[in-house]
Amino acid sequence: MMFDYSSPLLTDLYQLTMMQGYFEQGMDDTAVFEFFVRKLPDNRSFLLAAGLEQTLHYLEDLHWSENDLSWLEESGRFSKPFVDWLAGMRFTGEVHAMPEGTVFFANEPIVRITASLPQAQLVESRVINLLHYQTLIASKAARCRLCAPDKLLVDFGLRRAHGAEAGLFAARASYIAGFNGSATVLAGQRFDIPAYGTMAHSFIQAHDDEVSAFEHFAHAQPRNVVLLIDTYDTEQAAHDLVALAPRLKAQDIAIQAVRIDSGDLGDHARRVRDILDDGGLSEIGIFASGNVDEYLLEQLVAGGAPIGGFGIGTHMDTSADAPYLDCAYKLQEYAGRARRKRSEGKATWPGRKQVYRQLDDAGRIVHDVVTLVDDPCDGMPLLEPVMSHGELIAPWPTLESIAETARRNLDSLPAESRRLRGQFPRPVHISNALQALAASADRAAGH
Amino acid sequence: MMFDYSSPLLTDLYQLTMMQGYFEQGMDDTAVFEFFVRKLPDNRSFLLAAGLEQTLHYLEDLHWSENDLSWLEESGRFSKPFVDWLAGMRFTGEVHAMPEGTVFFANEPIVRITASLPQAQLVESRVINLLHYQTLIASKAARCRLCAPDKLLVDFGLRRAHGAEAGLFAARASYIAGFNGSATVLAGQRFDIPAYGTMAHSFIQAHDDEVSAFEHFAHAQPRNVVLLIDTYDTEQAAHDLVALAPRLKAQDIAIQAVRIDSGDLGDHARRVRDILDDGGLSEIGIFASGNVDEYLLEQLVAGGAPIGGFGIGTHMDTSADAPYLDCAYKLQEYAGRARRKRSEGKATWPGRKQVYRQLDDAGRIVHDVVTLVDDPCDGMPLLEPVMSHGELIAPWPTLESIAETARRNLDSLPAESRRLRGQFPRPVHISNALQALAASADRAAGH
Repeated sequence: MMFDYSSPLLTDLYQLTMMQGYFEQGMDDTAVFEFFVRKLPDNRSFLLAAGLEQTLHYLEDLHWSENDLSWLEESGRFSKPFVDWLAGMRFTGEVHAMPEGTVFFANEPIVRITASLPQAQLVESRVINLLHYQTLIASKAARCRLCAPDKLLVDFGLRRAHGAEAGLFAARASYIAGFNGSATVLAGQRFDIPAYGTMAHSFIQAHDDEVSAFEHFAHAQPRNVVLLIDTYDTEQAAHDLVALAPRLKAQDIAIQAVRIDSGDLGDHARRVRDILDDGGLSEIGIFASGNVDEYLLEQLVAGGAPIGGFGIGTHMDTSADAPYLDCAYKLQEYAGRARRKRSEGKATWPGRKQVYRQLDDAGRIVHDVVTLVDDPCDGMPLLEPVMSHGELIAPWPTLESIAETARRNLDSLPAESRRLRGQFPRPVHISNALQALAASADRAAGH
Repeated sequence: MMFDYSSPLLTDLYQLTMMQGYFEQGMDDTAVFEFFVRKLPDNRSFLLAAGLEQTLHYLEDLHWSENDLSWLEESGRFSKPFVDWLAGMRFTGEVHAMPEGTVFFANEPIVRITASLPQAQLVESRVINLLHYQTLIASKAARCRLCAPDKLLVDFGLRRAHGAEAGLFAARASYIAGFNGSATVLAGQRFDIPAYGTMAHSFIQAHDDEVSAFEHFAHAQPRNVVLLIDTYDTEQAAHDLVALAPRLKAQDIAIQAVRIDSGDLGDHARRVRDILDDGGLSEIGIFASGNVDEYLLEQLVAGGAPIGGFGIGTHMDTSADAPYLDCAYKLQEYAGRARRKRSEGKATWPGRKQVYRQLDDAGRIVHDVVTLVDDPCDGMPLLEPVMSHGELIAPWPTLESIAETARRNLDSLPAESRRLRGQFPRPVHISNALQALAASADRAAGH
């Protein structure tokens, strides 16, 4: 029970105080909220949408338990009629969204929620919480995949992810972005994501000598022999493997790979590669981990380090160089009228919006146009209906199919958006119709 | 069910492959693992221990469901006898730890787990995951509290925290470090943390004019009237309040505060303060939010900005300037023999350790000594027994009492450790006994 997070109390208090205000004023007309990112972090040329499936499950399942309702009432902050009304509350609105795995840019709505004002308001905190994290991590993971298209990439980040859910969802988001799998076993069970993993230093240390540890491990996991060789002396361990491999081979056990987890990964890999090759073990692969991120990955790949796979943990699961997105979920229309916030540096584009993407003949993104839903433009509309009357419109795509969407989307990135650093093109146009609506919303509000 | 994270499958695959190795070799002697931080992030002079209560609950509750066991068996990676053995597995070990709220430094164990090797191994991933995040956030929050000892500080970070658990635990960790409360309602319900919150921009936008929104909100929440004034024009809204306040007063409703969420918070606060004071509303407080972290807080406090309270969200809940700690959970002893990893840049101090703290006459930390448990030193030992035979030794302290421990610990920081930036003292000595053991462990391992 400690670790059950499905309660609607996983929200900000102000959602509830505002709802009570709406309730008392009878304000339950249709509201349109959109989720978007205001500005990309430094060193991000694009983002990859993820987390929608969990968001829709949250909306579908939304309900108040007796326990939560009594707690609210006992808090003394809310009226009895309001709490009684909550008891029957469900999410019965519509959702339009870019499919998971879609590349997107600043100021493009990726999810639009259309529902009665109190419903659409209550869900804000958790909807942002769910969309933000997986999008953050899928975007980081996509950068890793773009730098190392042919390497085995595995999520190793559970331990330093920010809590249980971050660990689990990082596995999902990185798999969508093209990772091969995750060390997190729960992600295997829940999402059918391939699980990877072999041994830690403690396994070596618990044995009186390193070679016995290797041998014991090989016997316990004969089809998964990846040996960690940096506990004491990396090159010495590689030499020891040259002696050990024939003994294991005689028992029909093949060492698949070695893992290096410390020091200069490129240097160690080259030395270990030479030792293994000289010992006739060229079929043994090298897997590296330890402080790997897309920047190091790019450098190792460019330098031709003989490493076939990488475990990428902390830097990815915390998106360490950009640990959050400047994202928002904002009211764009209420009771049929466009709404706009004009706070300094945080002004929003009003109205129900659609994003149209234009590709060139090679299938690369030329630009996107953000406009109003009733102002069709050339190109492919990116937001699709996914939920109607609070229910999923169609069965959710498999993770494999979402990963395929992501692969196609990443393929459509123009070359200048594939770099890890620098100034990037901002291929988003705001349509004339949208600019006109913003001006008219300002006039109507008297600004 | 989607959001239940209590399964022991929330671990790294290698814990299970190693356990199968231990199982097959009959390696179930006593192992001692310690959790520590290798090196503090830049701009961190100390850390604040947190997350132990959830870690101990995890250990107490650890068990395998039928469902998890069948999944493991069907994965084809594990032997039937091993899976059968897991079915009866519980955590039956001992835990020693620094109390939550203790200030600590690099290379000091804050938790020591003593249990049979497979038990102590399995729990590694989740123990790190739980201790790392709350310690990270408590440390960040403590920095905020140190810069602003007299301000109201409220956690606003749920939406951009990395998932549900991060949102909930950030509320707990920041409360331990001296925050006054959190906007996260679930933290109120689960941990009895005071909940704060009033309105978002959407409440204002949903109304046809801002003043009606203020009025409606004041009627709906007459004891909690904090009005958000930056949706359109901050100073204009302050002027409007001067006109509104007497009308509300006539209905016995007092405006408690205004909130400013954008622009230059110090500048706006000064202008709003003047407008309110000129209008005879000097009793209305000013609360600020929007991109606040300890650096901005220090600057606003030093500049005398007339702001009484702050909502601190994203930067704290993601620890944005240092989104992870270089922490580890390492085997220090197995079957009565000290163990040591010597990987480059990641060597560990072997053996079961204790940390002794010496304070000066003013109660400030002079230095800590890290030594072996059987080498008593002067000063106060920081690690205490908290779990025996898998059960809590004593009822867990209340959050209030943990926050009091943290307050005392923060008071004990020397002046040079209270700065936000720069080079800090490293007040940790490694005892002669520990250095001798490390040398002897190396000799025994033949290095």
